[in-house]
Amino acid sequence: MKIFQKEIKIKTKGIYDFVKITEKLEEVVKESKIKNGILFANSLHNTAALLIQEDDPTIFEDLKEMFERILPMNSKYHHSYEGNENATAHQKNNLLKSFFTVPIKDGKLVKGTWQDFWVIELFEPRERKVFVTIIGE
Amino acid sequence: MKIFQKEIKIKTKGIYDFVKITEKLEEVVKESKIKNGILFANSLHNTAALLIQEDDPTIFEDLKEMFERILPMNSKYHHSYEGNENATAHQKNNLLKSFFTVPIKDGKLVKGTWQDFWVIELFEPRERKVFVTIIGE
Amino acid sequence: MKIFQKEIKIKTKGIYDFVKITEKLEEVVKESKIKNGILFANSLHNTAALLIQEDDPTIFEDLKEMFERILPMNSKYHHSYEGNENATAHQKNNLLKSFFTVPIKDGKLVKGTWQDFWVIELFEPRERKVFVTIIGE
Repeated sequence: MKIFQKEIKIKTKGIYDFVKITEKLEEVVKESKIKNGILFANSLHNTAALLIQEDDPTIFEDLKEMFERILPMNSKYHHSYEGNENATAHQKNNLLKSFFTVPIKDGKLVKGTWQDFWVIELFEPRERKVFVTIIGE
Repeated sequence: MKIFQKEIKIKTKGIYDFVKITEKLEEVVKESKIKNGILFANSLHNTAALLIQEDDPTIFEDLKEMFERILPMNSKYHHSYEGNENATAHQKNNLLKSFFTVPIKDGKLVKGTWQDFWVIELFEPRERKVFVTIIGE
Repeated sequence: MKIFQKEIKIKTKGIYDFVKITEKLEEVVKESKIKNGILFANSLHNTAALLIQEDDPTIFEDLKEMFERILPMNSKYHHSYEGNENATAHQKNNLLKSFFTVPIKDGKLVKGTWQDFWVIELFEPRERKVFVTIIGE
């Protein structure tokens, strides 16, 4: 059993940039030389979430509209220092979460046919850090 | 320290079938012979979530009504190829998530008195795969 | 590679008590003597969630208002044996989740500049148990 750690950086283009990181994670698995275990991904931010979901832009359109229903951009927020995009970004992050775990088997991420791995920018263009940990053998 | 991996299959009866998998997970823990560690469960689907929650049908009734409030079935969705049940299922999955982790101590899952483990079918009758990983000693 | 387990207890003051546990978790990391690995935190309750979020009360005010929008306290719930605060607490817990994972590097929790770790009381004053597991070397 061993452990491998690596921080990856993702440049985002602004609110609701959905960045697929499946290949980047697969590269980290390869680099780790771990064949069977678990990969942990952690966003080091409160306004950039991590998600496991299908690669289909219509699903992300629906996500945006669901959020507009729950967290209307024209409503009044307490955390308003950086505007409503920031205030709502924190709540979207609370719902989507900033981490996930993925099994690794035979040197590959274990995922469903339609699953991909995403960083979701919820605020503004930023360089986002995702800390990847792999434990296994 | 060692690792144990096993895919389990769950047949669901349709939308909002709440399938308790506590016993199945306990069997996997037993089979693994790992006494202290962590169990990871990952649904390999984007429309079948995993949840830790009490075994009480009224809680699941409230869950359904909360979702109807957030994601009305009679609204218009972009991901409409397979109907609104599918479109909303993806979003419900985004909120409920498709993975959880549970500690193992003395050969047993560490859970609160009122906690059980569930697969939640969000779309239609399907055979769902849950990939279980156990790491420990 | 080794494993360290410890249950910590948190006294909460009532609904929407947001208890920062960052220091407590750091103490457990120190006690574990594990330098590189992963920390898993699991709330053993269905009405007390765990969250990674910034230490800013305005964010928690917005969280409360988002929940009031999704789960109005004056609505009718099926899980009503212990009142609407309890019924809605279960659903808030379904959304916020009762677990998170945090990497550990060089003996410290890996977190963003603005990230802290929280137990969120969703029901009433209680003694809450958080089971902490650390795996690493």
